[in-house]
Amino acid sequence: MRLATFLSVNRPDIILIVSIYLHDIPLAESQARLKTALQDAGIWGVLGIETISLDENALGRVTAESIWAKISSPHYHASAMDGFAVRAEDTNGAQPTSPINILLDDGVWDRKTGQVNKGRYVDTGDPLPDWANAVIPIESVESLDVDGAISHDIRNLISIRIRAAVAPWNYVRPLGEDIIATQLVLPAGHVLRPVDLGAIAAAGHNQIKVARKPRVAILPTGTELVPIGSKLKAGDILEYNSLVIAAQIKAMGGDPTRFPIIQDDFDLICEHVEEVAGKFDLILLNAGSSAGRDDYSAKVIDKLGTLLVHGVAVRPGHPVILGLVDRDKFQTKGIGGSPGSVTLSSVTPIIGVPGYPVSAALTIEIFAEPILARWLGRQVANLQTENAQITRKITSPPGDEDYIRVVIGKVGERMLAAPLSRGAGVITSLVQADGLVILPPGVQGMEAGETVTVKLYRNKGDLEHTIFCIGSHDLLLDLLAEFLSKYDRRFISANVGSQGGLMALRRGEAHLAGSHLLDPQTGEYNISSIRQYMPEIPVKLIALSKREQGLIVRHGNPKQVKTLQDLRRPDVHFINRQHGAGTRVLLDYYLKLSDISPGTIQGYNQEEYTHLGVAAAISSGRVDCGLGIAAAAQALDLDFLPLFQERYDLVIPKEFSEGELLAPLIKILNDSDFREAVAKLKGYDASISGSVILEDI
Amino acid sequence: MRLATFLSVNRPDIILIVSIYLHDIPLAESQARLKTALQDAGIWGVLGIETISLDENALGRVTAESIWAKISSPHYHASAMDGFAVRAEDTNGAQPTSPINILLDDGVWDRKTGQVNKGRYVDTGDPLPDWANAVIPIESVESLDVDGAISHDIRNLISIRIRAAVAPWNYVRPLGEDIIATQLVLPAGHVLRPVDLGAIAAAGHNQIKVARKPRVAILPTGTELVPIGSKLKAGDILEYNSLVIAAQIKAMGGDPTRFPIIQDDFDLICEHVEEVAGKFDLILLNAGSSAGRDDYSAKVIDKLGTLLVHGVAVRPGHPVILGLVDRDKFQTKGIGGSPGSVTLSSVTPIIGVPGYPVSAALTIEIFAEPILARWLGRQVANLQTENAQITRKITSPPGDEDYIRVVIGKVGERMLAAPLSRGAGVITSLVQADGLVILPPGVQGMEAGETVTVKLYRNKGDLEHTIFCIGSHDLLLDLLAEFLSKYDRRFISANVGSQGGLMALRRGEAHLAGSHLLDPQTGEYNISSIRQYMPEIPVKLIALSKREQGLIVRHGNPKQVKTLQDLRRPDVHFINRQHGAGTRVLLDYYLKLSDISPGTIQGYNQEEYTHLGVAAAISSGRVDCGLGIAAAAQALDLDFLPLFQERYDLVIPKEFSEGELLAPLIKILNDSDFREAVAKLKGYDASISGSVILEDI
Repeated sequence: MRLATFLSVNRPDIILIVSIYLHDIPLAESQARLKTALQDAGIWGVLGIETISLDENALGRVTAESIWAKISSPHYHASAMDGFAVRAEDTNGAQPTSPINILLDDGVWDRKTGQVNKGRYVDTGDPLPDWANAVIPIESVESLDVDGAISHDIRNLISIRIRAAVAPWNYVRPLGEDIIATQLVLPAGHVLRPVDLGAIAAAGHNQIKVARKPRVAILPTGTELVPIGSKLKAGDILEYNSLVIAAQIKAMGGDPTRFPIIQDDFDLICEHVEEVAGKFDLILLNAGSSAGRDDYSAKVIDKLGTLLVHGVAVRPGHPVILGLVDRDKFQTKGIGGSPGSVTLSSVTPIIGVPGYPVSAALTIEIFAEPILARWLGRQVANLQTENAQITRKITSPPGDEDYIRVVIGKVGERMLAAPLSRGAGVITSLVQADGLVILPPGVQGMEAGETVTVKLYRNKGDLEHTIFCIGSHDLLLDLLAEFLSKYDRRFISANVGSQGGLMALRRGEAHLAGSHLLDPQTGEYNISSIRQYMPEIPVKLIALSKREQGLIVRHGNPKQVKTLQDLRRPDVHFINRQHGAGTRVLLDYYLKLSDISPGTIQGYNQEEYTHLGVAAAISSGRVDCGLGIAAAAQALDLDFLPLFQERYDLVIPKEFSEGELLAPLIKILNDSDFREAVAKLKGYDASISGSVILEDI
Repeated sequence: MRLATFLSVNRPDIILIVSIYLHDIPLAESQARLKTALQDAGIWGVLGIETISLDENALGRVTAESIWAKISSPHYHASAMDGFAVRAEDTNGAQPTSPINILLDDGVWDRKTGQVNKGRYVDTGDPLPDWANAVIPIESVESLDVDGAISHDIRNLISIRIRAAVAPWNYVRPLGEDIIATQLVLPAGHVLRPVDLGAIAAAGHNQIKVARKPRVAILPTGTELVPIGSKLKAGDILEYNSLVIAAQIKAMGGDPTRFPIIQDDFDLICEHVEEVAGKFDLILLNAGSSAGRDDYSAKVIDKLGTLLVHGVAVRPGHPVILGLVDRDKFQTKGIGGSPGSVTLSSVTPIIGVPGYPVSAALTIEIFAEPILARWLGRQVANLQTENAQITRKITSPPGDEDYIRVVIGKVGERMLAAPLSRGAGVITSLVQADGLVILPPGVQGMEAGETVTVKLYRNKGDLEHTIFCIGSHDLLLDLLAEFLSKYDRRFISANVGSQGGLMALRRGEAHLAGSHLLDPQTGEYNISSIRQYMPEIPVKLIALSKREQGLIVRHGNPKQVKTLQDLRRPDVHFINRQHGAGTRVLLDYYLKLSDISPGTIQGYNQEEYTHLGVAAAISSGRVDCGLGIAAAAQALDLDFLPLFQERYDLVIPKEFSEGELLAPLIKILNDSDFREAVAKLKGYDASISGSVILEDI
């Protein structure tokens, strides 16, 4: 995938192609081409059928044939209660005032009716005697001992006395009540759940025919890739796509095999693809699917089979390659046929999966899931949907099917969908995502407030457990998220600065905001800003913590920056926070006090959006210093020079501060465990955590 | 569980207790007692922590500790595109009409600005050179060869020409864009999904701490039990509860072990419980939890530990036992401590699980799931809910928490919940169930049409794929269900007879009805009944098949029944279908033609609700013959004497016959595959399948 050293490359076969995605193929057409190719190759159906024993390992397997009952259940007329089997006709005429006696086992001559009344004790599940057609529960009879006295000691019972007639088949489970031989128990293509196993067993089976698991080879390629857990140097990329893909394939019902990293070498990749083609049903080549210098996937497929699609109009993920490897096109080395009794097609589908993790995961969902579903004979997983209002404007490139990941939460009565980072490299956006908004090719974006349909990754019930926090960033928000997870609450925080948070609360887009806005006039925090930005909304203002703000510098403070005055030095490069951030307000306040003009500070206009963003900029050497919190410095092993202490509060509209959703949050703030955890972080003073600063009526 | 031979029993310790469930304990209190006992025993939290490698086997495991990022991702400033790394300030002033040249690698002196413009080719993912702060995508530049001509051949490129300025950090993925070292990646108690594994790897981990899987021993007890697949004799019960329970425990994240069937013997059961107590975290004893003669569970627990609860006010499932086995109370034989490095508590919770399969499965959901969730540190699975109108009246015993299984479907605009069989022995009711309606102890039932909240077992999206068919039973409906499953349609048929079906259509409770109602006046089928029972509703009437009706008799026809006249014989016992059934109308029609009075037929008033019910009654020897279809006779290996041929139709309101839901059904009826499958069944004539008999405008 890399070309950094291209000037020294001297291979005439490699030409850089500049306009590579002009001809992206629409998603539906790409899928159709693949389907047609698999149909033509005779591999667009269940790949094979396995007979397995009916045990708990059958869970999640897919029935390959419809299951018809071999036997009925119950397979005899069974007593449904502990009680006495009788002939219903013997009980006719029994009344509270005129009981009928029934002799157990031998029958008794009833003087009035002139018939022999016969009964027998049966436990639940026992077969009815041939002559019986009803059961009287043990609770409904008087059991009599040899002397005719009422007894509960079964050793002495010889007859029962009943005072009500019973209908035929009373408390009997007739033959076939549950299952009748020959009935359909489950159709083919059914994904087995625990109770299904019981029904299949009850229908007389102890083996079951299921679809063979498709074997999927996952080949990671890339000279820049290193195994997870490696010590990293710049340019190294952790190879975890194969891990995610393998887990996805497993969850879909396939049988994944991960191969070691293959260097970017055309012949080497060909060799590996040739080898797995005879042993697997599907090959996933990740990455090299782009059209860069070392992107060999398309070439490999072209050599070993047929390239069907290179580039799909879907975002993220467009450099997808779809193709077939054809073993007839090359000599298969050292394999000697397919393993076991499984016959594999001479043609193997291959997907060139893009390298960015978000693109890779979506490619598997979009292209691999339908193939696996077909091979297993099951339906494609139906994601359920939910309508929600999008919280901010999103734009979408024309012509692409655009997959936008969102977090969903219910704020008041509105279900809101907050778009996550669109970056194809941001795997945390997939971790946080509650679902996908898919914009079709014609749509170029959506305005904030528009209603979108979200395909859900998560159970709908979970959505109402999400707390949206917006505003200033603080490390304690992660700590809060951790504590809240124990109360089945998901705490999602978006960082837009203190002012941005208050304005979002005003628009009803979050449950609470983190804020540390100093009022330079009063020296008080947050109250005047709350009145200014959200004047109509009654709030509860709760202190989260006091924290130190100071200068973050590289380890050892090489530029010897010590005070705000040093920011004016020409050799010192500063990085600022964005407009509206409390930290920036604080900086401006102290700059004014110190009579320093912002224009004299190099980098005053360069902005980062979080404390850790500032710290990262310093850590990487991009800049020398910035204003931020101690915890951020500590996180990236930087030095911290405390300058001032400030208060960081949570602003909660009363509507939410009194609701059930936020109740655990209020509890945690007053919890000694939480304070102890805060106190362990450098630069925090948790003594005020949970104090109510302001509460509107 | 059996007492059939009680007269020969001679053990003085066994006394039959008649009123056993007078003191059922409310569900919430039962759960609270168990929780308190486990808290007191110190086993009401994660049982243990395991460190496992981060691979696809981690899927579904539960994080035992919060995962914090060890490294940032990207861990350097990375190019987000294939393109050229530059200094943004070098591009200032570039215009379409006044381009700026940038020399690759060595820098070029720009005459106008007097600066050295420096660039370097980077692939996606490459680290930015120290001096660069932006990337220009390869598509946005003119690349020039040594002669200053535009070239796409990278071998010859020495400079690029740009015609627009770029901002700093353009197409750069800054350090920490995805993950910043020290941030919370996932909280403890999170069930791992595929993408989570990627995020954890990206955060620098290659191992992960997860909760140890709780070990669950499943002990089936009962002298009447036989292993699945056994050849059965009356009274034998297939032991498949342990299979369902093991699969449930596995799906919940536990590690189940199934033990062989234990005879109903107090000492034997004690011995087995003692043995597993030292090796497992939870013991499930199934069944023997009732208070019958051979129900030893309570006694066993009382001897080996503490009985906490015997009998819970929940239905089905009330004979549940909750207790603790205490190893300090007995000598542990031949175990020698717990296996591996795991330390088990000296106290082991034990649940006496009721024997009926529906009760057993619900007991595991109600009692085992909360314990396993706690031991794994995760939340209890949240079933999502859906509101629906109940289709028929249900009654509920006072005092019990009543779990009613329902099938859900959308008929027109109404979401309907049809209650399934309430029988605790009907495992197919669990297979068919879309969810549970839970009636709290105070509620004694619900009227048809009332809105209920259903806890869903199934994805909400699947509910709208359900077709409700009601009316007369025919075996072809199972065949239709099988064919429809390939089109992602679930076909649920309820058997209420032909007339009942038409009335249900009128009430809007189903999408279609199966009917074979002969009009004795016209000799035509269904049309006059449709006009009579659902006069306002425009319908499409489609023939499903012609079929033979005749007398079903035992193999070899021992009573030599041959014509309707034989039904009058005193030695012949007949069984009838219920009022409103087409078969009954047919019988009455022909009885009248033959001048036979119903009163002369033994069993004319005894009713079964399906053809197979009739066949089962004959097969079991309960009766000698009945009127029904050939397929039912064939299914249970009975003889069939054809008497008449009739037409069986599908009645579909136009509202549904034209909708998307039923489109596959219409297609299948005209499908040659379907006709061939029908033709294979005895007594059917598929030549008319799919013919439209009537279509209202």
